[in-house]
Amino acid sequence: MTKQMAKTKHPPKRTGKTAGQPPKPRASAAAGDDNTITALKLKPAQLSPDMAAYFAKCEEKLGFVPNVLKAYAFDNAKLAAFAALYNDLMLAPSGLSKLEREMIAVAVSSHNRCYYCLVAHGAAVRQLSGDPPLGELMAMNFRAARLSKRERAMLDFAVKLTAEPWLVEEEDRARLRRGGFSDRDIWDIASVAGFFNMTNRVASATDMRPNSVYHRQAR
Amino acid sequence: MTKQMAKTKHPPKRTGKTAGQPPKPRASAAAGDDNTITALKLKPAQLSPDMAAYFAKCEEKLGFVPNVLKAYAFDNAKLAAFAALYNDLMLAPSGLSKLEREMIAVAVSSHNRCYYCLVAHGAAVRQLSGDPPLGELMAMNFRAARLSKRERAMLDFAVKLTAEPWLVEEEDRARLRRGGFSDRDIWDIASVAGFFNMTNRVASATDMRPNSVYHRQAR
Amino acid sequence: MTKQMAKTKHPPKRTGKTAGQPPKPRASAAAGDDNTITALKLKPAQLSPDMAAYFAKCEEKLGFVPNVLKAYAFDNAKLAAFAALYNDLMLAPSGLSKLEREMIAVAVSSHNRCYYCLVAHGAAVRQLSGDPPLGELMAMNFRAARLSKRERAMLDFAVKLTAEPWLVEEEDRARLRRGGFSDRDIWDIASVAGFFNMTNRVASATDMRPNSVYHRQAR
Amino acid sequence: MTKQMAKTKHPPKRTGKTAGQPPKPRASAAAGDDNTITALKLKPAQLSPDMAAYFAKCEEKLGFVPNVLKAYAFDNAKLAAFAALYNDLMLAPSGLSKLEREMIAVAVSSHNRCYYCLVAHGAAVRQLSGDPPLGELMAMNFRAARLSKRERAMLDFAVKLTAEPWLVEEEDRARLRRGGFSDRDIWDIASVAGFFNMTNRVASATDMRPNSVYHRQAR
Amino acid sequence: MTKQMAKTKHPPKRTGKTAGQPPKPRASAAAGDDNTITALKLKPAQLSPDMAAYFAKCEEKLGFVPNVLKAYAFDNAKLAAFAALYNDLMLAPSGLSKLEREMIAVAVSSHNRCYYCLVAHGAAVRQLSGDPPLGELMAMNFRAARLSKRERAMLDFAVKLTAEPWLVEEEDRARLRRGGFSDRDIWDIASVAGFFNMTNRVASATDMRPNSVYHRQAR
Amino acid sequence: MTKQMAKTKHPPKRTGKTAGQPPKPRASAAAGDDNTITALKLKPAQLSPDMAAYFAKCEEKLGFVPNVLKAYAFDNAKLAAFAALYNDLMLAPSGLSKLEREMIAVAVSSHNRCYYCLVAHGAAVRQLSGDPPLGELMAMNFRAARLSKRERAMLDFAVKLTAEPWLVEEEDRARLRRGGFSDRDIWDIASVAGFFNMTNRVASATDMRPNSVYHRQAR
Repeated sequence: MTKQMAKTKHPPKRTGKTAGQPPKPRASAAAGDDNTITALKLKPAQLSPDMAAYFAKCEEKLGFVPNVLKAYAFDNAKLAAFAALYNDLMLAPSGLSKLEREMIAVAVSSHNRCYYCLVAHGAAVRQLSGDPPLGELMAMNFRAARLSKRERAMLDFAVKLTAEPWLVEEEDRARLRRGGFSDRDIWDIASVAGFFNMTNRVASATDMRPNSVYHRQAR
Repeated sequence: MTKQMAKTKHPPKRTGKTAGQPPKPRASAAAGDDNTITALKLKPAQLSPDMAAYFAKCEEKLGFVPNVLKAYAFDNAKLAAFAALYNDLMLAPSGLSKLEREMIAVAVSSHNRCYYCLVAHGAAVRQLSGDPPLGELMAMNFRAARLSKRERAMLDFAVKLTAEPWLVEEEDRARLRRGGFSDRDIWDIASVAGFFNMTNRVASATDMRPNSVYHRQAR
Repeated sequence: MTKQMAKTKHPPKRTGKTAGQPPKPRASAAAGDDNTITALKLKPAQLSPDMAAYFAKCEEKLGFVPNVLKAYAFDNAKLAAFAALYNDLMLAPSGLSKLEREMIAVAVSSHNRCYYCLVAHGAAVRQLSGDPPLGELMAMNFRAARLSKRERAMLDFAVKLTAEPWLVEEEDRARLRRGGFSDRDIWDIASVAGFFNMTNRVASATDMRPNSVYHRQAR
Repeated sequence: MTKQMAKTKHPPKRTGKTAGQPPKPRASAAAGDDNTITALKLKPAQLSPDMAAYFAKCEEKLGFVPNVLKAYAFDNAKLAAFAALYNDLMLAPSGLSKLEREMIAVAVSSHNRCYYCLVAHGAAVRQLSGDPPLGELMAMNFRAARLSKRERAMLDFAVKLTAEPWLVEEEDRARLRRGGFSDRDIWDIASVAGFFNMTNRVASATDMRPNSVYHRQAR
Repeated sequence: MTKQMAKTKHPPKRTGKTAGQPPKPRASAAAGDDNTITALKLKPAQLSPDMAAYFAKCEEKLGFVPNVLKAYAFDNAKLAAFAALYNDLMLAPSGLSKLEREMIAVAVSSHNRCYYCLVAHGAAVRQLSGDPPLGELMAMNFRAARLSKRERAMLDFAVKLTAEPWLVEEEDRARLRRGGFSDRDIWDIASVAGFFNMTNRVASATDMRPNSVYHRQAR
Repeated sequence: MTKQMAKTKHPPKRTGKTAGQPPKPRASAAAGDDNTITALKLKPAQLSPDMAAYFAKCEEKLGFVPNVLKAYAFDNAKLAAFAALYNDLMLAPSGLSKLEREMIAVAVSSHNRCYYCLVAHGAAVRQLSGDPPLGELMAMNFRAARLSKRERAMLDFAVKLTAEPWLVEEEDRARLRRGGFSDRDIWDIASVAGFFNMTNRVASATDMRPNSVYHRQAR
């Protein structure tokens, strides 16, 4: 038997050790994510009473303030405008469930390869769905997920709108309508997809880092 | 002399007439832009007092209400959130001049080939700069414009962030800093570029049409 | 009422003024377009009688000599060959109207983001159609224009041929035939689209600048 | 205070409930991953003694047989050839640590958006590094990870080779050499990157599904 | 020894036979290339005396009339304009050698994957250079060829101009000048590259087929 | 008659001479291909008896040892693993003929613009098919070849899998099944396409050079 075949008898061990090569400890690739939230040095503002109350609510409900909010906290007006838009899009009544909106968030962020949004909203998909692999699939390739026709049509639209917005036309909207979406739903799909095309870019432009707690949520 | 060369004696006439082919009148390619603002049938809401006042101010200052605001007017909360974010980004104090912010708007919208935003913000660049060709250049290819180093660095960043946000890294921010931009300025460039990546997509998803008045402004 | 909402009461003013930031006069982004026609220093040739007559006809009919002709005027043979091809394609009898040929010119030039051709032929579309927004739409995103099926099929073919010529196959020709185009028309669509793929590149390679007069034509 | 601002007082709850919209149970997006390993109906072969021993070793060391091996098990020769190549590349002595090889595997698979390989090798990166976010970063955007210069040079090369192999030239190899890699190391980087460009495509072509156990490993 | 290793004892035979699978004769993939020159049915015109003389010269010097000329022969004016431009660009005096112009032709046609031009001008490169692999390299990937710095700079410019003309700027011209090219040479590089971007598209749009004789020339 | 038209009387001569510009002898663009097989300096190993026998068989049957095998010969285990996989994929019994497998090899290598594989496997297509233009067409643009529906479906799948593996879905497999391919055939198409996506990258990463003898084979 050749040496080569002998080798195939050894299944993949994952010890990280190669003979004579002691594993070097390495700093975490996400080191500092909870401390240095962006690459920009912007002095935090004194939070307005509204915003202070908002941060307190976050602490109470989530156990932490999402880093994106801290990143905006150098300017109360910008923070308030961002929070108002975010909350309207992701939490207000809509024909889209909250999970559907988070699925759009992650599929769009996957196209744009946005670390912050994939981590934070991937956790949301895992949590809202109770199906951790769904979060992975949205972040990796939504086309590989077992989805309903409705979900697939919604994500196809959102990702086409992300990748080649200039090609979106009436037939794309017609496909959504055939999938059971109302015109108001189409607005909401477009708005959520649009919003993450904005935040993905703000996050990438500033090297925004997600709270490390997200990594372990709802696995 | 050959027939071909003879033909070159006739300079390009632009009469639109070909022998035996009477020019057919055609409907405008922008027909209905002032009436059917999007492809979605969304019932206008009763404007809240805040929003009604805002529309009135638009009429007073601009002479019309921008169609994007009418498009959002099916829901006062969405309209207010959009307007608040827009006004903060484009009009609030910033190290970027209003013209610079509009230049970003158009260069980003050019990458995304967004009809609504190119028309509306192209007009703004013409108006703010008093240099109509600048509006054209932002819409066609900002690299062909005679720009200051600062303007060029700003637009290179905004368009890279639009096209391939996943490739933006510290070196890109460093180039902006070398170009004289502060960290706060970088935030503003990223935010304006991000915002138009959002609105370009909402506009494309809904086939949003610009007020026809923009076409003739500041030519 | 929060500060943020208060701000939304102020509609977008376009005065270009930010408090404490007096608008700096800036040179036009198209400065010198009428003087320095390309980035190459090529000594003008003595025009041949044929070409001198051609330039004179341009002055008489258009009021100016298009800069592209001046750019070629360093060599009479090259100028004559270019002019002969241009005039045959754009002005000779064809199943395509002159406007249709100019629409192809602009849609192709939009894909290639060619400043010279977008300005010069955008003006031609505005003029020939009597529909200024049509010129804008061809330059921005032809898919957003209200077009006839014939026009749309023609432009879809021309732009696919521009973007991914290796993918054009019998089915693409068949769609044109179904749209009412003859085989001769298909040749003409291909030739005009091909021609602007040539001139767009000559213009981009040499930083060719359009006559400034085009900007204001037929607005 | 406006209604809008009031809303920002409610931080993002992630209960999945929208008033009047009871959360519908949905099948897992990865349903059946452990049973239907590919979309191809290929009858498993009787394992050869070599391959049966190999599978037994996998069970013993890993607790399961990776689905990719089961996918190949319709043909002992193909299974043996695949396993021999895999084990040589990923486990044999090399100047690259096992972790480095797995990092290449995931960064390449991220470019190719391969569900199977991202799940299986993402788990390997988490396990070998003891740094779960490193696995996420390789799958999302390796450029956002805090890496050594060596790691970054290695991944830049592997991903360029994946995306645009025709552009790889001497300067790319020179950069690796400057980063401390020997010519043999360069071979290994190329071979591992090449291998995953193969398996990503076999997996995508056949809709190969990862063992569900990977999702929870080393979080 | 395993079955797998045994198999490696048999080197790659290229007999085309698989046990029990007699090689089926298949029609040539280029069948009809000499008869059906394009997919368009265009009636040949009576050649003008100039053009008849030109065709006769082709027969005399080349032994055949290139199919591209036959394709244009439905219209003497179009044929003459094409021939005049072609001959000026490829044959007139220039700082670029004829071989250099043909190298540009093939590298551009390779980017555009144009069957007609790769076959016809690949033959020209083989013939003019006396180096058949040079023809292959231009058609496959010019970056893999052993070229002079001058040739490489020329082809880098031509292919960038082909792929992304909107990105060509002063620095690109400066690199050519540093490589020893005059401004007139830059014009010629741009014009030849532009020309093949035209003809590649006319050929692809019409499924133009090369004379079969080219395949065997100068191998 | 103008000078320009006069020039068209001279058909394209291919003498390579321009007045006053004596043709400079240039080194072959493939100089050294038979000697310096890759850009990496890797010391050849002592061949194992198995591998020595394999090389001897190559010499006997082909008249030479393919350079890719020499490139791997620095390590017997790697060489054996590569050869085993290669031989299984390209030579073992399959529903795909050997020619079909070589057609996939070349179409994939064309997408990846891989010099080594295009030269070596282009020769194989010419030889196995007895149709030299088929080899050219696979290397240039398979869409321009006159192919059976079966061949076209096979190559469309292989090239889509190469270009955008993340988009391959059930409908793509269904099209192959409609084209007469079994699930086992689909596996083989995917495996061959995957394999060349690997070897294309190993070859490009190392600047692997083909044996010069391939250039003249079966022309």
